[in-house]
Amino acid sequence: MSLIVKQGKVKSKSKKSLFNDITSLSEIGEFGLIDRVAQLFREGEEDNRLGIGDDCAVLPSGDGSSLLVTTDMLIENRHFRMDWIDPEDLGYKALAVNISDISAMGGAPEFAFLSLGLHSDISTEWLDRFFRGTRELSAIHDIKLMGGDTTKSPSDMVISYTLLGLMDQSKVLLRSGARPGDKIALLGKVGESGAGLKLLAEKELNGNSKYQSLVKAHNRPKLFVREAQYLAEFNAVHSMIDLSDGIQSDARHIANRSGAELIIDLDLLPLSSTLTGFCNEYSCSATELALTSGEDYGLLFTLSGEKAGIIRKQFTEQFGYSFHLIGEVAEGDPAVNYTKKGRPFKIEKQGFDHFKTK
Amino acid sequence: MSLIVKQGKVKSKSKKSLFNDITSLSEIGEFGLIDRVAQLFREGEEDNRLGIGDDCAVLPSGDGSSLLVTTDMLIENRHFRMDWIDPEDLGYKALAVNISDISAMGGAPEFAFLSLGLHSDISTEWLDRFFRGTRELSAIHDIKLMGGDTTKSPSDMVISYTLLGLMDQSKVLLRSGARPGDKIALLGKVGESGAGLKLLAEKELNGNSKYQSLVKAHNRPKLFVREAQYLAEFNAVHSMIDLSDGIQSDARHIANRSGAELIIDLDLLPLSSTLTGFCNEYSCSATELALTSGEDYGLLFTLSGEKAGIIRKQFTEQFGYSFHLIGEVAEGDPAVNYTKKGRPFKIEKQGFDHFKTK
Repeated sequence: MSLIVKQGKVKSKSKKSLFNDITSLSEIGEFGLIDRVAQLFREGEEDNRLGIGDDCAVLPSGDGSSLLVTTDMLIENRHFRMDWIDPEDLGYKALAVNISDISAMGGAPEFAFLSLGLHSDISTEWLDRFFRGTRELSAIHDIKLMGGDTTKSPSDMVISYTLLGLMDQSKVLLRSGARPGDKIALLGKVGESGAGLKLLAEKELNGNSKYQSLVKAHNRPKLFVREAQYLAEFNAVHSMIDLSDGIQSDARHIANRSGAELIIDLDLLPLSSTLTGFCNEYSCSATELALTSGEDYGLLFTLSGEKAGIIRKQFTEQFGYSFHLIGEVAEGDPAVNYTKKGRPFKIEKQGFDHFKTK
Repeated sequence: MSLIVKQGKVKSKSKKSLFNDITSLSEIGEFGLIDRVAQLFREGEEDNRLGIGDDCAVLPSGDGSSLLVTTDMLIENRHFRMDWIDPEDLGYKALAVNISDISAMGGAPEFAFLSLGLHSDISTEWLDRFFRGTRELSAIHDIKLMGGDTTKSPSDMVISYTLLGLMDQSKVLLRSGARPGDKIALLGKVGESGAGLKLLAEKELNGNSKYQSLVKAHNRPKLFVREAQYLAEFNAVHSMIDLSDGIQSDARHIANRSGAELIIDLDLLPLSSTLTGFCNEYSCSATELALTSGEDYGLLFTLSGEKAGIIRKQFTEQFGYSFHLIGEVAEGDPAVNYTKKGRPFKIEKQGFDHFKTK
């Protein structure tokens, strides 16, 4: 979920225009648009709902539980290409990216609403395969499809899910919870989805079967719902976000919302041998892919430095594998900084922004 | 909301394919697709949630209140054209069609989630005006925009709202509540939106300022939120639907879900003098527009025949105007039948179906 509304009272400079000081959307980018819409809608309003501006909106129900709501829209030729992804994988992924938002709060997905804009000549075979992929994932998580909307789309296909989840309000993991002294932890692989996208984009690489696991990482991302629910049980786990836009962009959300500096040690990034092999063969930087390419859908979270070791041990006992500790939260201006071989390291490339990048 | 999931256990003929007996989507249409997806997702599952397959999904919260959820997606060149609607009206209408679904249950809209697929060259002036129209309507109903998603769309713009509402569970008005002996009631104008669309489509008529109220009926539909909440307080009001696809199609939903025959007296349809004037001038049938053109967003409901008179009187005292009684619910096979001058009357044209009509 990206169109986010700030918590609390937001002061607006102008009641007349959202955009009186800029001339084009690309100038302010996606997050700039978000901030401006938030101003318009929340002007003068106090708010005590949690999680606004997070992966999900969090609506307390009054009995100690909270309703989580997220929505993600995929548009053909923007988020997917029909010749780059099987219908099964597309059905799977469109739901998966929404489940990832729910799990980033530590919640359980419950009810799905699906809006589809379909080509009028879409084959029933394609639809069958699409829904088979969706059903496969919804069955794993016992998600009920409760409604939606279908229509013909004159050009690009549109797949828009809204997903509702539930969880104890006291356990909700927000982006804003990181504290100085926390360790930064990473669950899941990074950079693989971006490498998979490169493979898909370059037809001559596409046939290289050695790296099909990277394509799979892009088309059928692994989710961590049970793991996130487990982590949310610990008071010592303080903040969480899912990696949809790349570590660089997503870690910045935690830094900004928590008002803290995040320092990530690039030597600690878990780069798989498949990814480094791919990058050696095709001259790309595995670190850069991990930081900026997005769509990995792992979880980035922070937890008490004192408790990190014991929680990591318990996690391993529970799941048979564990998360990686890749940095620390420090007092300082909200920013994400990097070290490599013990020294500060500057990253040039920016994370993904829908209106600033091509 | 159109992609609906049937209540209760649904038997599926085949677990392998949604579409094993048909070859194209246009063959089964939108509602056929809906039924098939419902089969796939609900197979073997018992369900006690209300309102599934209705204007909204109804999720009981356990304390006597229910969460209503609806979602509607508008795609450029399918549901709107940029040269036929002002940005303000588009911002207004995109939210209005969702509010209409909430009001069709008798509920109050509360939280909105907006996903936008935007042209990358969209002007900030256009966005300003779009959000001003949205904000105008959300302020009237005190709706909070809680989140969403923004992305670039390579071709057509996409506007997808999900709207959450709340109401007493015991007062939810379903499509399935119509009973033999009920009167059929209509709140709001009918046919005007369809006439407005004709005006927009025919450039030479467009300039006819006499009929601009018809264009307004199409671009900025009137809503009946307070009226529907008022009606939901009466036990004698039994069923309700909003008129999004035309009386013919929407009345059929009540007939099918209630297992009853709806008999509508065409002489009782409230056709405005503006509409009949337009139809006289441009040789169209006002009755046909009212029955089949859709997007009027009035409310069609049924209420006890015995109480209809007194409720209508009280409604008039409350709001200063009233609804129209246009027919009766009878025992019989689920169908919508018509009379004119006391005799049965056949309607040829069908209501709108996204995949069956051009």
